[in-house]
Amino acid sequence: MYGRDILSVKQFNRGDLEYIFGVAHEMSEMVRRVGTFDLLKGKILANLFYEPSTRTSASFTAAMERLGGSVIPINEVRYSSVSKGESLPDTVRTLEAYADVIVLRHPEVGSAALAAQYASKPIINAGDGVGEHPTQALLDLFTVLEEMKRLDGLTVTMLGDLKFGRTVHSLSRLLTLFNVKLNYVAPPSQRMPEEIVAEIAETGVPQKETPNLEEVLAETDVLYVTRIQKERFANPDDYDAIKGAYVITPETMKQAKEEMIVMHPLPRVGEIAIEVDTDPRAAYFRQVEYGLYVRMALLAMVLGKA
Amino acid sequence: MYGRDILSVKQFNRGDLEYIFGVAHEMSEMVRRVGTFDLLKGKILANLFYEPSTRTSASFTAAMERLGGSVIPINEVRYSSVSKGESLPDTVRTLEAYADVIVLRHPEVGSAALAAQYASKPIINAGDGVGEHPTQALLDLFTVLEEMKRLDGLTVTMLGDLKFGRTVHSLSRLLTLFNVKLNYVAPPSQRMPEEIVAEIAETGVPQKETPNLEEVLAETDVLYVTRIQKERFANPDDYDAIKGAYVITPETMKQAKEEMIVMHPLPRVGEIAIEVDTDPRAAYFRQVEYGLYVRMALLAMVLGKA
Amino acid sequence: MYGRDILSVKQFNRGDLEYIFGVAHEMSEMVRRVGTFDLLKGKILANLFYEPSTRTSASFTAAMERLGGSVIPINEVRYSSVSKGESLPDTVRTLEAYADVIVLRHPEVGSAALAAQYASKPIINAGDGVGEHPTQALLDLFTVLEEMKRLDGLTVTMLGDLKFGRTVHSLSRLLTLFNVKLNYVAPPSQRMPEEIVAEIAETGVPQKETPNLEEVLAETDVLYVTRIQKERFANPDDYDAIKGAYVITPETMKQAKEEMIVMHPLPRVGEIAIEVDTDPRAAYFRQVEYGLYVRMALLAMVLGKA
Repeated sequence: MYGRDILSVKQFNRGDLEYIFGVAHEMSEMVRRVGTFDLLKGKILANLFYEPSTRTSASFTAAMERLGGSVIPINEVRYSSVSKGESLPDTVRTLEAYADVIVLRHPEVGSAALAAQYASKPIINAGDGVGEHPTQALLDLFTVLEEMKRLDGLTVTMLGDLKFGRTVHSLSRLLTLFNVKLNYVAPPSQRMPEEIVAEIAETGVPQKETPNLEEVLAETDVLYVTRIQKERFANPDDYDAIKGAYVITPETMKQAKEEMIVMHPLPRVGEIAIEVDTDPRAAYFRQVEYGLYVRMALLAMVLGKA
Repeated sequence: MYGRDILSVKQFNRGDLEYIFGVAHEMSEMVRRVGTFDLLKGKILANLFYEPSTRTSASFTAAMERLGGSVIPINEVRYSSVSKGESLPDTVRTLEAYADVIVLRHPEVGSAALAAQYASKPIINAGDGVGEHPTQALLDLFTVLEEMKRLDGLTVTMLGDLKFGRTVHSLSRLLTLFNVKLNYVAPPSQRMPEEIVAEIAETGVPQKETPNLEEVLAETDVLYVTRIQKERFANPDDYDAIKGAYVITPETMKQAKEEMIVMHPLPRVGEIAIEVDTDPRAAYFRQVEYGLYVRMALLAMVLGKA
Repeated sequence: MYGRDILSVKQFNRGDLEYIFGVAHEMSEMVRRVGTFDLLKGKILANLFYEPSTRTSASFTAAMERLGGSVIPINEVRYSSVSKGESLPDTVRTLEAYADVIVLRHPEVGSAALAAQYASKPIINAGDGVGEHPTQALLDLFTVLEEMKRLDGLTVTMLGDLKFGRTVHSLSRLLTLFNVKLNYVAPPSQRMPEEIVAEIAETGVPQKETPNLEEVLAETDVLYVTRIQKERFANPDDYDAIKGAYVITPETMKQAKEEMIVMHPLPRVGEIAIEVDTDPRAAYFRQVEYGLYVRMALLAMVLGKA
């Protein structure tokens, strides 16, 4: 992986994932044992965020710092030379004079690939609009692996806004590399897009769609919850009518397996009741921590230090 | 103090303060001797500011960096996931997956206590609205100690807006742990709140209120100046009528003791004439430096390294 | 240079420049060999930007981090205590309690000198409005030296908006310390200001003005391109009429020497066609990297470590 860009989940095969997750697991053990270590001492990350994302930005910053490296934070791009009209390729070629690796968050699809085309240093895509957010998908999958101790043989249920949810699209694609079953639970207006269903169908992974969580909850090993955004509904009444059906409560958890996990990409705004937080199956805050380890692994790998 | 939160001045007794100030004094000697040292190497501070405060944010950043630790700066919360409605408990539980300690500045009273309730890592309150700003009160008190070489037996005069001034409330409360006399000099509309006067009265500390600084200046060992904000006055003429009476000038200093200090939490906007800056009794810029040492001490203590 | 401020190009003589460039060259060799090293370990830079400048801010941050030092980033001054009206001298005296050196970007002419007057720690001017941006001028000159292997005997052509272009003013002044010839190519409304032409004339450096690049291109060793800003034109048609004449294309490059360089302070917005980027004479991205080395040199020098 030395010198490579991380642009899309599509670039990884099963072997790649196993390697990444192996390194990420080692990172978790090192962090638990010593907190921080100097694997990337002297390396500099340019954290280039064209749109704010506290969570992702902080995660990459922490990943670099826990590896002993430094960060150039660039969070206010809208106010600066970019607002004078500078092109992304020029900005990236400037920053690579300073940094060893660039993490890029940008609102436009394809921006990370464009940046990578011009940069000679590795680019890590931290979200390019409705395009990809590959490190989120990788951390989601790593969470499943660490929590369930396997990826094959699992039933994964995606819940909520499956139409616009970039994370569920990427995760679903990645899961097809394993022997899983996928359930999609969404309101009629926010179903998983047909082209993704078709793409996954070709891989032979079984898929099931239903508007009712109850129909699939009992068989679910991994329940991946996403937010249903009120602003997606043309008619607010439609939102009010269905929102309750997609909220996870302690009642929901009673009907779930003893051995399963609830995930969420966060931030949540009501779609998982806070009473669920103390349930040991609630994995969403641990998921944040797994994200740190995956990003540490990716940084170390593209810088040739894994 | 290992693992504890720093939420309020009320949590400290006299012994705690003496311990903190002892560590802070050692920090000052280390900084003067070597500038920076690796006591917190490998530790990460999440500097979570929901409202801007260059001064406090920079102080904590410097404190962490002078101890060899790293910082995750989070200054733009309003633009990020929080603006999607994420709750403070969720944000804090996310950040503690990355960091070893969280410094929180938030506009709402009680926010630091709420954060601490959910976080397993230490929370340091860097100001929660009109609530508390305990590290400011501690650095104020440490300044008095370092400059006057004692806390007992001093006459401390608070000047300016004593009604809304969070710092004078906290400092007055802390001073009651020592054998002091307190004077309050404020315009009638901005007197020290009755409940604080009553609370302090119970401790037996003598208090005196007057609108005239001259009445108490000659006996003052510590003159703590705060800003009178024009926008607090219903009638701007009222402001213009009194503002001059609360400005410290070289003339004022002539009537003050030879051995006394003038403090100010900064920023100042005219309430101390710049001609006073070169007076050796002007302690307000040294006060900034004492703040660095107090914050270094607190970070080291809650991380178990003091 | 230990403890000195970097405020203006006027403070340097030829010997100073040779010394700075010697150190900058060593920095380039160290970065190429080891990436980062601990010359300024334990030192802290306050990066104080009153107006955004991603490029300059990131360059100083990288320079400090490649020297093993730490940075306090202060990018949001407009929202913070400064917006409460704090004076620059007070802000600077606060920050020097935390940091060992202060880099200041401020929209007002003379602000860096004002800051230096009050600060006891070194101030580096990173641009004070239409005043100076000395580190830009130094990196421009260092680029010429590193690329052309000499400064004497060169013909330097400045192109574009020479009226408002702060960088061409400072660079032209610096070049008069060497045995050069200067050409100014600008539209009539944006000619090099008379007072600068007069100032340079006194040094005996030959100068030539023309609106046509073709007239001087063949003799040019260094072509310094700047942006012509549409908003400077009273009549937009005037802009449209001339803009094409000041765009560098592969056609332009055919008429240029084999051994010459094209520079640009960046960001560019169309005044150099992207097809030129792959021409080995296109030095503008290398120029960014030279900026890193010059800033590393200056930081090391004012902190007494060069």
